[in-house]
Amino acid sequence: MRIAILLYDDFTALDAVGPYEVLSRIPGAEVVFTAARRGPVRTDMKSLALTADAALDEVDAADVLLVPGGPGTEAQLSDPAVVEWVRAVDATTTWTSSVCSGSLILAAAGLLKGRRATSHWCCLDRLPRFGAEPTGTERIVVDGKYATAAGVSAGIDLALSLTGRLADDRTAEAIQLVIEYDPQPPYSAGSVATAPPGLVADLLSNNLLLR
Amino acid sequence: MRIAILLYDDFTALDAVGPYEVLSRIPGAEVVFTAARRGPVRTDMKSLALTADAALDEVDAADVLLVPGGPGTEAQLSDPAVVEWVRAVDATTTWTSSVCSGSLILAAAGLLKGRRATSHWCCLDRLPRFGAEPTGTERIVVDGKYATAAGVSAGIDLALSLTGRLADDRTAEAIQLVIEYDPQPPYSAGSVATAPPGLVADLLSNNLLLR
Repeated sequence: MRIAILLYDDFTALDAVGPYEVLSRIPGAEVVFTAARRGPVRTDMKSLALTADAALDEVDAADVLLVPGGPGTEAQLSDPAVVEWVRAVDATTTWTSSVCSGSLILAAAGLLKGRRATSHWCCLDRLPRFGAEPTGTERIVVDGKYATAAGVSAGIDLALSLTGRLADDRTAEAIQLVIEYDPQPPYSAGSVATAPPGLVADLLSNNLLLR
Repeated sequence: MRIAILLYDDFTALDAVGPYEVLSRIPGAEVVFTAARRGPVRTDMKSLALTADAALDEVDAADVLLVPGGPGTEAQLSDPAVVEWVRAVDATTTWTSSVCSGSLILAAAGLLKGRRATSHWCCLDRLPRFGAEPTGTERIVVDGKYATAAGVSAGIDLALSLTGRLADDRTAEAIQLVIEYDPQPPYSAGSVATAPPGLVADLLSNNLLLR
């Protein structure tokens, strides 16, 4: 089972690495990080690069496609090489998935027309321009073979859910135990609904934290 | 504020990237991934490499040191260059921290003698050989300036907790909202206490999933 994860400049590291940590542990899984060119790809925060082991033209099919988000998403939406690659690989997948603003790339490729989808909370309002129907209350949205996750850390939940479908519940539970995913956030500000008063507005006016 | 994250062959990606995603967003933070040599360092699952931007001898001080775990931990315990580097940088830190089996490296450097600490559930019983006192019920253990986290995904909780101490609660909450950390695991197998019957034994006899 081949799992292709797209990388591009200014993606958000955890969007890609959370799902990787889960999906790569499915017995028989082969993950390939893919970008415009082979080699290191810098994340949005700049102090980390992940290596793409394949260029886009070296990967023409996958059982699972995963597209992360991040501030670099915007530039991908108008890059024909990326959008056409996503569309072509999607034609071969069992599951096409995204984390965070990665859903905008799927949408720009025309894959989410008339479908329910989600994204990072700051980007939900951009989905309709591509014909997708945003849902703001679900962390993972599955519509047909398209599975979109909310922001950044939601990719871990997405990947465990996909593992149950790609393999079985026991395998997903085993991987959850291996990565000791028993989350105990020390704060309760993880969603727009639970964030303390004023925090959403503060962030929307603070490009540094949201970059 | 300088945050040094150690990389080594066969580390577990999420151990390092979970904390990075949080800590790198603290205003004024400068993260440096550090390894024996500059360049790509392969994770335990092999299909991903992270770039170390500095060699060990290029980093001699840090405000925060974070040591990830993984199957590659074992080889580090007997590598004098790594153990001595950890000891030397620790002498300069405000916080010295670990995720997963990374606590064994701190322990091998003599930093956890007589201190309470945690680790991945499969490694807890190895801490006493270095004079540390394992606690198996807490996800994050803080003893003095030493903060150790349980397995893999616990690094996200650790980093949010450290952010509250390094900056303030509001900053930690802002970062939690940026990474939309509102975990909703689709299974409840994330700890030894909640895993379904037989799963821990299955994993301990299955090197593939635990590697």
